[in-house]
Amino acid sequence: MSLVVVGSVAYDGVETPHGRVERMLGGACTYISLAASYFTRTAIVAVVGDDFCPQDEEFLASRGIDLTGLERAPGKTFFWSGVYSEDMNERTTLRTDLNVFANFNPKLPEDYRNYPYLFLGNIQPALQRSVRAQMNGLRLVGGDTMNYWISNARDELLAALREWDCLLINDGEARQLSGHYNLRRAAETILDMGPHTLIVKRGEYGAILFRRDGHFVAPAYLLDKVLDPTGAGDSFAGGFFGYLAGCNIDLREDRADPRELRRAVIYGSVMGSFCCEQFGVERFRTLTRAEIDERFEEFQKFTGF
Amino acid sequence: MSLVVVGSVAYDGVETPHGRVERMLGGACTYISLAASYFTRTAIVAVVGDDFCPQDEEFLASRGIDLTGLERAPGKTFFWSGVYSEDMNERTTLRTDLNVFANFNPKLPEDYRNYPYLFLGNIQPALQRSVRAQMNGLRLVGGDTMNYWISNARDELLAALREWDCLLINDGEARQLSGHYNLRRAAETILDMGPHTLIVKRGEYGAILFRRDGHFVAPAYLLDKVLDPTGAGDSFAGGFFGYLAGCNIDLREDRADPRELRRAVIYGSVMGSFCCEQFGVERFRTLTRAEIDERFEEFQKFTGF
Repeated sequence: MSLVVVGSVAYDGVETPHGRVERMLGGACTYISLAASYFTRTAIVAVVGDDFCPQDEEFLASRGIDLTGLERAPGKTFFWSGVYSEDMNERTTLRTDLNVFANFNPKLPEDYRNYPYLFLGNIQPALQRSVRAQMNGLRLVGGDTMNYWISNARDELLAALREWDCLLINDGEARQLSGHYNLRRAAETILDMGPHTLIVKRGEYGAILFRRDGHFVAPAYLLDKVLDPTGAGDSFAGGFFGYLAGCNIDLREDRADPRELRRAVIYGSVMGSFCCEQFGVERFRTLTRAEIDERFEEFQKFTGF
Repeated sequence: MSLVVVGSVAYDGVETPHGRVERMLGGACTYISLAASYFTRTAIVAVVGDDFCPQDEEFLASRGIDLTGLERAPGKTFFWSGVYSEDMNERTTLRTDLNVFANFNPKLPEDYRNYPYLFLGNIQPALQRSVRAQMNGLRLVGGDTMNYWISNARDELLAALREWDCLLINDGEARQLSGHYNLRRAAETILDMGPHTLIVKRGEYGAILFRRDGHFVAPAYLLDKVLDPTGAGDSFAGGFFGYLAGCNIDLREDRADPRELRRAVIYGSVMGSFCCEQFGVERFRTLTRAEIDERFEEFQKFTGF
């Protein structure tokens, strides 16, 4: 089946204890669609400037990603740069130049509108709603958000959430959105906001899937070297949602196969782990589906009892 | 089979966001032995002052714990007090009065010396060595330590570690002891120091078991209310080691059944979770083995895929 991904395509500057890259392909939509492309036909909606490199476009196309919805606008591509702490658990943003992204008003190509799966990367909740409204007959819609929108566009975000099946956020965001520190209580509150499925990402500790009928705790893969964690959360989202779309899985109440849903979470964790092995999107240039499935099996080995 | 536990029996004063207790039974040896007592015959070696309450002694005895090695010395029992942060991930020590513990020089009752299992709670590494030397024909010896000994008694600690099968420490201590931030690398370094089995405790994120032949990632139980995390790590150790002793499991290379070893880790996580449900040791006053096994089964449900 087919998945539409909306979000930022950007250039990033990143410094970690293992090195520094001045400018490389990045952005939520980039990571989500690259990860999803291993599992399902993936089409993106995003905007780039006239500085966007043909090589980067070719790379996305080489992964089979449909770029019909990749708008080119006069000006520069969204640029972000940041530096990670020694333990890589914290990062400081050095620069955020929205550039052409400031006027992003996603319009879906006609072809996209009947796709059954939609993932809304972290952008303004009003834009997420507008994309959602352009789709016909969705089977599943999921999305991400961030602390900024939780604080500054709360009503719009809550309106968006009411229309989603699935929300993927990190633990800090879940606490902020719900007002509860305890994750079980946070999840209960968020499941009352609309989504029937919540994934709380916990970085190096993995992720938890929450639904009304229970939860599933998935670990992260223990890498022996994390080069650059940028994009790991988005790669998780791409693996998770890509797997659901690829297997044509329906998550609505009573229709979900819990086993498939859990497999999707593990594939999310697998894709997040690969992302960290190299800077930016580099790992996706060589990664194969066979390597992905091998790591999935490793997860079974180091978690079973 | 039978387990000897050495460590502190203390009184604690604890404040968490959910309440405050001025003085209650605590100490590593107390939590370890209480948790272990659900799985195996447990005998303790510790020292208390003449202020130690008969009711506390009766409570330990009521769990079947052998108190022959509980020495009474003139003076006061070890007292510790601390306050937890709002999210309970950090705690500040307010007071540490070693009292009779300052001159603790553990002497094992004759009866204990042929016990096959020994767990050395966090005390001076030199004392841990002296206890180890008093035992005959041990099948398995495990222990805990802390940042203070890693910094201030490193050589003595390294000498102790060379004689242990199993080390249980938290992630911060593993990083400090090994000099590696990455846990996989930290574990490799620590496994070169002597123990063939390492458990790295990660608080609310669970624990990882490392051996030369691989690792096992165990989550923590998602409690909907953590009243007081004091003693959770020691309860983990008691559940883990108590299960191994109770099932007469040998962990030495090539003899360990990996399945039983993983079950032991999960029982550790189960006991740590119960400990947090009430202040101090309160939960152990009512906890039953049936509840423990029920929670073990819950772990299978929320981790399987």
